Amino acid sequence: MKRIAIDMDEVIADTLRKFLAVCNTELGTSLTKSDLAGKNFWEVIDKKHFPKIRAHVYENDFFADLEVMPGSQEAIKKLNESYEVFISSSAMEVPPSFTAKFEWLKAHFPFIPPSHIVFCGDKSVINADYLIDDNMRHFERFRGEGILFTAPHNLGVRGYRRVANWKEAEKLFLPAAK
Amino acid sequence: MKRIAIDMDEVIADTLRKFLAVCNTELGTSLTKSDLAGKNFWEVIDKKHFPKIRAHVYENDFFADLEVMPGSQEAIKKLNESYEVFISSSAMEVPPSFTAKFEWLKAHFPFIPPSHIVFCGDKSVINADYLIDDNMRHFERFRGEGILFTAPHNLGVRGYRRVANWKEAEKLFLPAAK
Repeated sequence: MKRIAIDMDEVIADTLRKFLAVCNTELGTSLTKSDLAGKNFWEVIDKKHFPKIRAHVYENDFFADLEVMPGSQEAIKKLNESYEVFISSSAMEVPPSFTAKFEWLKAHFPFIPPSHIVFCGDKSVINADYLIDDNMRHFERFRGEGILFTAPHNLGVRGYRRVANWKEAEKLFLPAAK
Repeated sequence: MKRIAIDMDEVIADTLRKFLAVCNTELGTSLTKSDLAGKNFWEVIDKKHFPKIRAHVYENDFFADLEVMPGSQEAIKKLNESYEVFISSSAMEVPPSFTAKFEWLKAHFPFIPPSHIVFCGDKSVINADYLIDDNMRHFERFRGEGILFTAPHNLGVRGYRRVANWKEAEKLFLPAAK
């Protein structure tokens, strides 16, 4: 059975929406996802605001109430029948997120057992056939194939197979399914 | 550069010593490591005491003050010069341990960057050439070679290369070093 590793932020969890909400509340801006086309979140706010925004991200519960990305639960439940599915998050970049991320997965993806959750940093340590991720940096040394999950910041990236949403991911991995 | 993944409990952290201390204090026993030859910790205590002992393990700080296994810091510092070293712990089995384990590593193995720390469950998800671990169950589907780190419970296990301590691990992986 082939194995698929799936990222959390921007792939199954709508972290960007929360980022923008925090930013708009804290800074009085009215940023939307369309303002981030081709850009990383940190590129659209003034450097002087970084500490204030970072403080939110490092709160224990920042990741606790993220919205689930549309269609991800249904799609991953189906993929889970034909593939070994692992969730792999670069949680080591934000250690206070460990518990919130684990609890979030338990609540929204209860069909993924804890044994199939991986918190790491450098994802070249993941042994899988595919990695669905919005960050191409994880594909460089990954031993399988990286599948880019479209996010505003990666719109200009070329060189990888790409899925724009979970419907497309289903079609790619389960072509015979309805 | 070859990659070595290294387990935490019983390999770089003396978890068993803490288990025994908790047990002896709670149950009035006087268990030592030699009582555990060929046995898992849970095989030497009465089932009725499991909840009481488990409660300790699930405390947030159980893993915070574990002693470092003799010679592990020096050996891993050396290995880190010739190999890509990752620390991989089955922390998903005890989620309250996440933060304590991360902080413990930062305190005792500061030369291992957070990007090289992996908290997982099923270690077949680790992409490495070697896995130094005391639990042979992690070797079954591991893509590299499992190196058994001797612990009381695995004394009878055959079929894998084994190191009894960190001096032996150094000799195995750095044969030309003093």
